Amino acid sequence: MKHNEYESLIGSYNDFPNEGILFRDVSPIFGNPKVFKKLINEMSDDVIIKNADAILAIDARGFIFGSAIGFNTSKPIVIARKPGKLPGEILTNEYELEYGKSTLSIQKNAIKDFDSFAIVDDLLATGGTVECIKNLLFSMNKKIVGLSVVIELSELNGRAKLPFKVNSQIVF
Amino acid sequence: MKHNEYESLIGSYNDFPNEGILFRDVSPIFGNPKVFKKLINEMSDDVIIKNADAILAIDARGFIFGSAIGFNTSKPIVIARKPGKLPGEILTNEYELEYGKSTLSIQKNAIKDFDSFAIVDDLLATGGTVECIKNLLFSMNKKIVGLSVVIELSELNGRAKLPFKVNSQIVF
Repeated sequence: MKHNEYESLIGSYNDFPNEGILFRDVSPIFGNPKVFKKLINEMSDDVIIKNADAILAIDARGFIFGSAIGFNTSKPIVIARKPGKLPGEILTNEYELEYGKSTLSIQKNAIKDFDSFAIVDDLLATGGTVECIKNLLFSMNKKIVGLSVVIELSELNGRAKLPFKVNSQIVF
Repeated sequence: MKHNEYESLIGSYNDFPNEGILFRDVSPIFGNPKVFKKLINEMSDDVIIKNADAILAIDARGFIFGSAIGFNTSKPIVIARKPGKLPGEILTNEYELEYGKSTLSIQKNAIKDFDSFAIVDDLLATGGTVECIKNLLFSMNKKIVGLSVVIELSELNGRAKLPFKVNSQIVF
């Protein structure tokens, strides 16, 4: 719990989207420009972002943080999306998440000019999503500097799966 | 075609995601920080953004533009999402889009402190998505200053459906 100012804005919802899940809602932070700016500036100052050629933002809340960080640091933004959303030649991988299964894709052309990536998402739970992206990037011989998230659910120990730096602003 | 610099980056894909659809892919702009910054600055300078209390960003590519504009202008960001993604008390509406049907939701708490909104998305096609958001906001007695998009498909005449200002950076 590094930042109570951020944490106090996070909504908590029992049994959402499925029974037994305690959902942490980061969206009130978007509605507070002062806090959002402070958070984006802090995430931008991290070595994970500084040492990466590009930001890899994960569909969909990851887009909000990844975009503002990319804009703030003048780093290129690459998006990972759910099935059927990205045209052209794509790399695709399946993963298991906290509640269900899903697939993520990246456009080959979007990553070809960059060597190293900072993955950005709103939340780290089991780490399945990030592991999926990791496998996609590693399969193309790319480097991952680290993962930067707003919320980390430490109980699920997602970071144990990830062979790179992980930085989170709020730990539950 | 106001900006050839933007237009030259847009990818065009026939029969994606469905047959008969010419898909315009805005994502190469995210990968070019100089162009992305210029685009976000131009969109931010628009009266549609300036005169709104908050940015309403549409899932999912709208998040990328809405977030950077919100960060750049210190305006609050509210997100409209697909079904099952937003917890708490929500407003929901169905709409028809260029290829299929969908639903969008907004959290009641997210809009309660703001009177007027600038809707931000990547692309205006038939206008179904924006009309859906319009109905949601009007049902809560909110004002819409306008819609700001990157790409407008003029042939589909989406702006005819919308009783507010529409600004687009690239017209096809």
